[in-house]
Amino acid sequence: MVKKKGLLIVISGPSGAGKGTICKKLVEKHEKINLSVSATTRKPREGEIEGVSYYYKSKSEFENMIDNDEFLEFAKIYENYYGTPKKTIFDEISKGNDVILEIEMQGAMQVKKSYPEAVFVFILPPSLSELKSRIVGRGTETNAQIEMRFNSAYNEIKLVGEYDYFVFNNVVEKSVEDIEKIIMSEKMKVIRYKDEIIDLFEKEILKC
Amino acid sequence: MVKKKGLLIVISGPSGAGKGTICKKLVEKHEKINLSVSATTRKPREGEIEGVSYYYKSKSEFENMIDNDEFLEFAKIYENYYGTPKKTIFDEISKGNDVILEIEMQGAMQVKKSYPEAVFVFILPPSLSELKSRIVGRGTETNAQIEMRFNSAYNEIKLVGEYDYFVFNNVVEKSVEDIEKIIMSEKMKVIRYKDEIIDLFEKEILKC
Repeated sequence: MVKKKGLLIVISGPSGAGKGTICKKLVEKHEKINLSVSATTRKPREGEIEGVSYYYKSKSEFENMIDNDEFLEFAKIYENYYGTPKKTIFDEISKGNDVILEIEMQGAMQVKKSYPEAVFVFILPPSLSELKSRIVGRGTETNAQIEMRFNSAYNEIKLVGEYDYFVFNNVVEKSVEDIEKIIMSEKMKVIRYKDEIIDLFEKEILKC
Repeated sequence: MVKKKGLLIVISGPSGAGKGTICKKLVEKHEKINLSVSATTRKPREGEIEGVSYYYKSKSEFENMIDNDEFLEFAKIYENYYGTPKKTIFDEISKGNDVILEIEMQGAMQVKKSYPEAVFVFILPPSLSELKSRIVGRGTETNAQIEMRFNSAYNEIKLVGEYDYFVFNNVVEKSVEDIEKIIMSEKMKVIRYKDEIIDLFEKEILKC
């Protein structure tokens, strides 16, 4: 059999589509699928753990990492930097583990440039009315906020064309299975393992 | 949900890899997966059924079909024509059914030109020694024939790069499941259904 590198699976989708729950379940279900941990310059909040919640960096540490091209993507949001370090992801991938990166669209598009081998999955709500009721159901937002979030969700859906796969998140367990299928079929793609396949049979020929 | 067209799944692989058995099981297992039926000018043999074994055509009928661009691919082998008619395949696909086309490499490459949306799967033997013992196990061939078949199998494997997916056929049931996963994940590809996804949500917005 062919030894397979792991995959980076980038998961985006409008807020309310349920991507967080899906990613959490995927990681719980599979020992060899890990969540990517971001680096940030924001201060740790109570209960957050270094290396689990985030990698906490000083501003100068973070800017050094930028200069050394150590991020798949990064952004400055208000006063703080957030970024996805290459090292931990590439370490996992080379061990044959998969990494899930839950990220908004702009970050995903940066990753597409820096690591096009990643698999880009867009999580869709089953319908806009369902999306709205999920956003309303959180009960944490004003009507104006809900309206804004809903409109931006709708605009985001129109950008689905930038992704490789779409998953309608109706039942979470089904969506998790869909992503499992995507991962498994991506690992049967010739383009990823062509040389390994030919090597495998050539080694055998040499032994004959 | 998005209404999905069916897929054409083209299956090739060296003789002895087991592609015939896999295709048969896939079709038995799924009502909505059908085997493509070829047209030919060769005479029906005993037990063969029109429209099941082949579509039997006269030479002039077949050549008319060629002139009218009615084949995904065709070849003349000794005195007889063999070809894959577009019509039945496209009819099934538009109904949302999938079609399996088991075909040797040269035919597959013709299909890649005439219908690049097809999914190209290459079935590999688990090893060359296993391939050899399967060819020998048939007990129908001379040593020279076995050697020739084995060498051409090895040369064919080197062309795996022309395909989208590879499946190591160790246990048939597992290979069938692998192809099921490929089919299901291909149906989550944005590139196939982008317009349908956007339409779906736009219709809903209009209703609001």
